[in-house]
Amino acid sequence: ETKIPQWRSYNFQSRILNVVVAGSPKPEDVSVNWIKPGTVVVNCCRDFHSEKYHGQQSSHPVEHDVCSLAIAMRMQNMVKSLERWIQSQQYRKWDIRCLKLQPRSPVPSDIEISRAQSPKAVDVLAKEIGLLTDEIEIYGQTKAKVRLSLLERLKDQPDGKYVLVAGITPTPLGEGKSTVTIGLVQALTAHLNINSFACLRQPSQGPTFGVKGGAAGGGYAQVIPMEEFNLHLTGDIHAITAANNLLAAAIDARILHENTQSDKALYNRLVPVVNGVRGFSTIQLARLRRLGINKTDPSTLTEEEISKFVRLDIDPSTITWQRVVDTNDRFLRKITIGQANTEKGFVRQAQFDIAVASEIMAILALTSGLADMKERLGKMVVANDKKGQPVTAEDLGVTGALAVLMKDAIKPTLMQTLEGTPVFVHAGPFANIAHGNSSVLADKIALKLVGEKGFVVTEAGFGADIGMEKFFNIKCRSSGLVPSVVVLVATVRALKMHGGGPNVTAGAPLKKEYTEENLQLVADGCCNLQKQIQIAQLFGVPVVVALNVFKTDSPAEVDLVCEIAKRSGAFDAVPCNHWSAGGRGAVKLAQAVEKAASQKSSFKYLYNLELPIVEKIRIIAQKVYGAQDIELSPAAQSQVDRYSRQGFGNLPICMAKTHLSLSHQPERKGVPTGFILPISDVRASIGAGFIYPLVGTMSTMPGLPTRPCFYDIDLDPATEQVKGLF
Amino acid sequence: ETKIPQWRSYNFQSRILNVVVAGSPKPEDVSVNWIKPGTVVVNCCRDFHSEKYHGQQSSHPVEHDVCSLAIAMRMQNMVKSLERWIQSQQYRKWDIRCLKLQPRSPVPSDIEISRAQSPKAVDVLAKEIGLLTDEIEIYGQTKAKVRLSLLERLKDQPDGKYVLVAGITPTPLGEGKSTVTIGLVQALTAHLNINSFACLRQPSQGPTFGVKGGAAGGGYAQVIPMEEFNLHLTGDIHAITAANNLLAAAIDARILHENTQSDKALYNRLVPVVNGVRGFSTIQLARLRRLGINKTDPSTLTEEEISKFVRLDIDPSTITWQRVVDTNDRFLRKITIGQANTEKGFVRQAQFDIAVASEIMAILALTSGLADMKERLGKMVVANDKKGQPVTAEDLGVTGALAVLMKDAIKPTLMQTLEGTPVFVHAGPFANIAHGNSSVLADKIALKLVGEKGFVVTEAGFGADIGMEKFFNIKCRSSGLVPSVVVLVATVRALKMHGGGPNVTAGAPLKKEYTEENLQLVADGCCNLQKQIQIAQLFGVPVVVALNVFKTDSPAEVDLVCEIAKRSGAFDAVPCNHWSAGGRGAVKLAQAVEKAASQKSSFKYLYNLELPIVEKIRIIAQKVYGAQDIELSPAAQSQVDRYSRQGFGNLPICMAKTHLSLSHQPERKGVPTGFILPISDVRASIGAGFIYPLVGTMSTMPGLPTRPCFYDIDLDPATEQVKGLF
Repeated sequence: ETKIPQWRSYNFQSRILNVVVAGSPKPEDVSVNWIKPGTVVVNCCRDFHSEKYHGQQSSHPVEHDVCSLAIAMRMQNMVKSLERWIQSQQYRKWDIRCLKLQPRSPVPSDIEISRAQSPKAVDVLAKEIGLLTDEIEIYGQTKAKVRLSLLERLKDQPDGKYVLVAGITPTPLGEGKSTVTIGLVQALTAHLNINSFACLRQPSQGPTFGVKGGAAGGGYAQVIPMEEFNLHLTGDIHAITAANNLLAAAIDARILHENTQSDKALYNRLVPVVNGVRGFSTIQLARLRRLGINKTDPSTLTEEEISKFVRLDIDPSTITWQRVVDTNDRFLRKITIGQANTEKGFVRQAQFDIAVASEIMAILALTSGLADMKERLGKMVVANDKKGQPVTAEDLGVTGALAVLMKDAIKPTLMQTLEGTPVFVHAGPFANIAHGNSSVLADKIALKLVGEKGFVVTEAGFGADIGMEKFFNIKCRSSGLVPSVVVLVATVRALKMHGGGPNVTAGAPLKKEYTEENLQLVADGCCNLQKQIQIAQLFGVPVVVALNVFKTDSPAEVDLVCEIAKRSGAFDAVPCNHWSAGGRGAVKLAQAVEKAASQKSSFKYLYNLELPIVEKIRIIAQKVYGAQDIELSPAAQSQVDRYSRQGFGNLPICMAKTHLSLSHQPERKGVPTGFILPISDVRASIGAGFIYPLVGTMSTMPGLPTRPCFYDIDLDPATEQVKGLF
Repeated sequence: ETKIPQWRSYNFQSRILNVVVAGSPKPEDVSVNWIKPGTVVVNCCRDFHSEKYHGQQSSHPVEHDVCSLAIAMRMQNMVKSLERWIQSQQYRKWDIRCLKLQPRSPVPSDIEISRAQSPKAVDVLAKEIGLLTDEIEIYGQTKAKVRLSLLERLKDQPDGKYVLVAGITPTPLGEGKSTVTIGLVQALTAHLNINSFACLRQPSQGPTFGVKGGAAGGGYAQVIPMEEFNLHLTGDIHAITAANNLLAAAIDARILHENTQSDKALYNRLVPVVNGVRGFSTIQLARLRRLGINKTDPSTLTEEEISKFVRLDIDPSTITWQRVVDTNDRFLRKITIGQANTEKGFVRQAQFDIAVASEIMAILALTSGLADMKERLGKMVVANDKKGQPVTAEDLGVTGALAVLMKDAIKPTLMQTLEGTPVFVHAGPFANIAHGNSSVLADKIALKLVGEKGFVVTEAGFGADIGMEKFFNIKCRSSGLVPSVVVLVATVRALKMHGGGPNVTAGAPLKKEYTEENLQLVADGCCNLQKQIQIAQLFGVPVVVALNVFKTDSPAEVDLVCEIAKRSGAFDAVPCNHWSAGGRGAVKLAQAVEKAASQKSSFKYLYNLELPIVEKIRIIAQKVYGAQDIELSPAAQSQVDRYSRQGFGNLPICMAKTHLSLSHQPERKGVPTGFILPISDVRASIGAGFIYPLVGTMSTMPGLPTRPCFYDIDLDPATEQVKGLF
């Protein structure tokens, strides 16, 4: 038996590393496992001895000798590889091989462009940006999940600059925030040789087959392979769906069982005798403590205590937890469930939402780690009991199971842009009823990886009045991260609409006002741009306006927008051509962003959490939307009272408002004033940690049109290539 | 610029290989891509030159020279690695490093055992069993998908032996078919040093959180990590759910749009003018051809043709396509959908099934490749039109989208047993209404990988009267594979039940008849064992009985069963202790199976497909179940007539019958006789390719009990370890 481990030690940033050498360390085989600050285990990923290190033996004794030899011979490499590793702990400018672009004109379809580029193997990209072998979990050739342990390893490293891409009030066609985000990082890293990361939302799969199509950016500013990005990715949304629906099933099943059994019968089933022993599960003991019953022996509970313990007494009319699917299925918007005889007539009306509308998605986007996620999952309120007290996932005993279902989803997914620069795809909460920003964890990891002089660019859903406001007041508050720059995306098309241009509707061809030069419409429409700039300034963050140029925009129109933007307080304003030219088309934007980031940002939140719920809503309505005041419906008011009573009054506010106008009326373009913002209802995502007032009705389930996208989507069985995605 | 590619050629099995060398070929970096018989491209997976080979350029010119040097220097290695690769094409006994087991007593929980073993990195396992680097897609450390291209590479290699594990009529607790399957391969490979593969079904996630728990085997015969096996795995079931529900949503949306629009409006939306051009999509052209309209110019269709084209005219009362979730959600067994105002009152009654009950799962299990899967998906019948003609997924235009959603699910997932031997996990069709066998593709790939002298062991759900019968008549018929041996799993417990022992019910403690020696009950119960042996013999395949020994079984009981089994025509009968001892406990079984496999099997199907549907049902009922005759309800008869009329009369039969008795009455144990088998209804899975008669009602959606498994399931945020799975 060869004697392993051997000990060596290295000085690393004024700490001593104790290095356990196990196995035959060919440099390319060495993997380094962080155990705790100051200690690492180095072992050879593809070697039997690493197993012996775990107390086992090879079934082929002969291999031992071969290998013991190898050890001796290779110790030299061992040392080299360790020195390399120690370097990898320090910040460095990435030595990243970018992928060359040869943009064609006219610009081909997104899927053609994506397919024409062959991505780097994701493990190569991971190595380029300083990830260690055991910090990634590869999913096929082009996707990898990144372990959260990296945050511990690099916790002493300073963060990079934090850039938010937001937009003016858009047309229904969208103004290209995602393409700007991708174009910007392609410019920073592939053309200016600055470390940068894009952090994007994972798109819902439903709309990919409905109307919208994909969300990987577009043209020559895309995440590739776009079909991987737009389809299952690494299964995070599927995991959310499974967790969400397990909880939903648990609610109705529990109501049924409580309604059909005596306290005694319930107690015998909930706390059964197993092999002669009767005991509470951990989660049941926690519930007992919450009920103020400090007993651990099931036989000692009084009848009253048993009754308190076994009955959640859920009031079905108060259930707010809905089932979800990641499919555009309009027929599930309102349904009646429980109509089979086996459910004994306990029917009720319910609904399915699109999966990304699940509170669990909002939690994934805001959580800081496994322990925090588990706590948030347990705190989710699903209904009230008949006394008006909140009933949580923890009360239903399902917290642990939900955490288990989500254990991999919590790791961000690494992909790459068309030019081979790194991208994180992680979480995509529904902007309608949630905060619509990608995950805090992806941003935090990316900020460590890019290092002090690097940039992390992320995106806020909808217009700045919604997405950016939520990004600052909800996401940044939860993460503690401070943004350096806001990139505000505008298009001549949207500005003309705000200036009084005719309606823009998806599907229908654009009116000539939008395809021919019209400086007056542009000038008039800039009021919306100006207002959105002012909103960003409320938070004390410098604004760079990115004008996403279309081929129909005239030079005069482009100049006019940039000039007005600067006059309106933007730090800078630049035209971008990333869609047709890739990163090269966004170099000016990248330079402007870099300059703006060198300003010190005096970031501040818009409101204090201690304020009453209604006060917080009013501040957003007046300061951000420009409303004269707000008006709560009786239903909304009683919800506000309930949440305040239940102790949820100090949560931030997540407005559910149309993105097509600063006001609540989609048809009011430009900068509406003098309106009263009607709050029809107020709901809460306690686990995610926000109250969401509904301004009018918000659809949480898209539908399929007469001719859905899927008519054009196909798979070539010979080449395995996907066609028709866009 | 260095000149690549270089050419060399090698003699390989009397064929000439033309080898294109691109990039710097360090042996460990070389990947080999099969292009067509006789030609391979060898290139370096992590090298810029491989990119240049794709017509691109590195952004770091300096690297070229470094690399051109490298090429010259490493050509020698190149040659070596090629020779290695050429060897890898030939069959060889695996040089596989098995994981050592040190079984403890009493046997710990499944999850403890699974966690105590550290699995090999899956890429190491893949290399050990002869998979090439580019034939696997790694999912994390312990799972990998295997590309179907392997079937082309090894098509000239002879198959291994094909072993089916089936069982006698079980108790509700199950008799351990999965553990026998795993124990057998652990014995074959880890203890007898024979190449072997286990091919298992992926379990539904729903029951994992309900009553049943996991399905990775148990004790010291398990697939590890069992939590990966039992949870999302590589997302195949999630992909099926997404595809199934997209089709479901398409059906209802189409009905709504047809009901609310004129022919003209429908036509304008289905065939819109895009950038001035109006054209049919590929899938629409296919539909036109099916309708006998041989036109390609949308402007030339007559009003009548337009009406035929735009209206599927689905009769809502005939819709057989249900939505699915992979959750035990009893409240979705019967629901009313479409109750939101946006659906204009087109409400209808529907249901959700558990995801594995989807026809798409049955297709995944039976398909032979991408092209075949796509064709089957298109052929799925979802309803009838008002003229009584079948409406298919192809008619709805969704075939391509379904194939895209399933493009990764079609690749089997590689995992390993507790002793480090290979396992494929792929497909898990619901045994209630489908054929309950794992995938044909996994079996085919495994049969190539184990080689001529190797063994592939797979499992049939339920008792042999259902699972094995379907395996032979449906799965083997579809794959053309010929089984060598049937392993019939029996337990003393189940035999005592058949001998007249008291009821066995899940949850309740076992009566003493089952924990104390009772030779009479055993002897009487062996009638069921004998009958199941005879059923296997109907198909001309030798039977080895595996008695799954429990610690309460007495030696006399064990001997008695083995003796009776041999008298009843079994080739051999052996006791197994794999649950407590791992592969070592199944060595005798492995030896018996190897001997039995050397017999020539005279395999034949039970019935001819050309027979009328009713005749085929009768043959199964009489020859397999021992029924006196069958009796069709009027509903069943009219369905039979309809399917025959529609041209589906020649499909095999997939009986939906209880597994708790040879008859249709679960309480009738042993070998019931003289009963008339009632066929209440007859349904069809046209894409999967079978007719399934319902014998009584079959639940397609399990429920959650008062105390679901999830009460014990938890995640440790610090160690990321899962607790409480079993």
